[in-house]
Amino acid sequence: MKIGIDVMSGDNAPCAVIDAVVEFIKHFENDQLVLFGDSERINALCKIKIQDIDRIEFVECKEVINYEDEPVKAIKTKKDSTLVKGFEYLRDGLIDAFVSAGNTGALLAGGILIVGRIKGVDRPALATLIPTKNKEFLLIDAGSNTECKPINLLQFAQMASIYMEKINGVKKPSVGLLNIGVEENKGNKLTKEAYTLLKETKSINFIGNFESREIPFNPPDVLVCDGFIGNIVLKLIEGMGLFLFDTLKEVANTNSKTKIGGLLLKSELKKFKNKFDYQEIGGAPLLGVNGAVFKCHGSSNWVAFYNGLRQLKMFCDNNVLEIFRNEIIAEREV
Amino acid sequence: MKIGIDVMSGDNAPCAVIDAVVEFIKHFENDQLVLFGDSERINALCKIKIQDIDRIEFVECKEVINYEDEPVKAIKTKKDSTLVKGFEYLRDGLIDAFVSAGNTGALLAGGILIVGRIKGVDRPALATLIPTKNKEFLLIDAGSNTECKPINLLQFAQMASIYMEKINGVKKPSVGLLNIGVEENKGNKLTKEAYTLLKETKSINFIGNFESREIPFNPPDVLVCDGFIGNIVLKLIEGMGLFLFDTLKEVANTNSKTKIGGLLLKSELKKFKNKFDYQEIGGAPLLGVNGAVFKCHGSSNWVAFYNGLRQLKMFCDNNVLEIFRNEIIAEREV
Repeated sequence: MKIGIDVMSGDNAPCAVIDAVVEFIKHFENDQLVLFGDSERINALCKIKIQDIDRIEFVECKEVINYEDEPVKAIKTKKDSTLVKGFEYLRDGLIDAFVSAGNTGALLAGGILIVGRIKGVDRPALATLIPTKNKEFLLIDAGSNTECKPINLLQFAQMASIYMEKINGVKKPSVGLLNIGVEENKGNKLTKEAYTLLKETKSINFIGNFESREIPFNPPDVLVCDGFIGNIVLKLIEGMGLFLFDTLKEVANTNSKTKIGGLLLKSELKKFKNKFDYQEIGGAPLLGVNGAVFKCHGSSNWVAFYNGLRQLKMFCDNNVLEIFRNEIIAEREV
Repeated sequence: MKIGIDVMSGDNAPCAVIDAVVEFIKHFENDQLVLFGDSERINALCKIKIQDIDRIEFVECKEVINYEDEPVKAIKTKKDSTLVKGFEYLRDGLIDAFVSAGNTGALLAGGILIVGRIKGVDRPALATLIPTKNKEFLLIDAGSNTECKPINLLQFAQMASIYMEKINGVKKPSVGLLNIGVEENKGNKLTKEAYTLLKETKSINFIGNFESREIPFNPPDVLVCDGFIGNIVLKLIEGMGLFLFDTLKEVANTNSKTKIGGLLLKSELKKFKNKFDYQEIGGAPLLGVNGAVFKCHGSSNWVAFYNGLRQLKMFCDNNVLEIFRNEIIAEREV
């Protein structure tokens, strides 16, 4: 298998990406890696760090799409960027999968415009795995589509259900619709109409509306919403987590008594904190694109990139795309 | 001044409400209270608990609008409910203000249909004060309008700015638009259009888009969004807070070492927790209705109800309604 990697994306690029490549080469024997980036910056780094250099291929890209770039325009004009070239390689079958920590909107735009969508899927969506106390759940759409129709939410639910079953081993994943009340008639126009569609679709295990207050306690395996709300929820969970650990540190620093208290709790708290570390989660798949595409967090370290690569390999090994192609078309024809 | 109280609403009604009335009577000498409820259930309770019974008036209501009731239908059919009668008294000038912990949708529907809106306001909105580390901020709309237009968001910002200045003493309150990126071109159709409107309005101190990750750290004084997202944000903040304190308790119970650690931190943690207690916040004003209306949390205890009453009194004493009437009409005529 050949995995394409955007080496120039993310706050810690290219070093963190190269370190992830080193780790991947060590753990997986047969796969090739294709690095998209500025050869002047990465060649030397790779030659120092990677022994098995034959398993690496370089594709020279002189441009990078930045976070500030307008997505569609950037995809259409920055022809020599890592994203555009990576997607072209994926479209042409020169690589089997592609991962980037770049501009989310450009990733979606490039996925649709260059690689294309899976037949039967109207809008691809970013699906992010979020850790909670007893389980991880998949939030979809986590930020790619700011305007959605009910049919989009249904397709998100279908793709996410397949993903959770094939990649995370969850049997009959439960699907909840993020809403402002649990009753069927609650919500806005989008959620009311999506509720009806989700309820009527036999292939998913729809459990009804789900309120955000319950997310940290007992979320469904798949939580469906539009990308605007999904992104706000994702970032609020991140922010609240950071805030509470910051505050805890501050509380522990109040006086000598609390300092001792903090020290006694430290190791157990660290275990708890690690459980919620998104670096362990790695990447988020862009489901619905006609190719295996993963997005890593912009501030990913090498562990996050490495985990992203691992997931991407699992995604390909399990033929998730092929299952999407068959099941989503079948569903539409019913 | 006469304050009307829905004595039958909320999980702890009528006892918690009556206890709040007792406290209010003690602290404020001149105001009258008008209780809407089932006299059989509340008269005896009041006679035992309240000495200065002359300051209390009872309005017999045989019905209650429940959380499950469809709002508009309930307002139109449950004519003998505490909400409908309370709003009628407010409309007719028999009371100066009204507070309830009942069905939010019915509160909005009753506010619009019975009391009416302030001239120039298209949609009233629930504004909830949320505590963070260094300050409180006002989230508007916190859950009353699930579909909004850009002009609604602008009016929410205007009313919330006046409220924060008059009631919370914040000079030139900063206004942020809840969005998925800080750049001007980020977001969905609603936020993009609202951004332009907010930027053009000189009477508010608009600071631009604001991302949810920063809410716990350094929110603007007023955070504007539609009521669907506002409600999801509000409940997620509540849920994450509860979850982290629950988990902390669990971590502290791991072994004898952590138990001692937990004990040493306990009193400082309690201070921190109290700061985030919504019971201290009391009620949320329904801004834009042509009368002083406050909503208390469904699970309010007597402290929350009492704080709601205090705020309602401050709202009236500061002539906030009159300022809305003048400033929002003036703004529209510019």
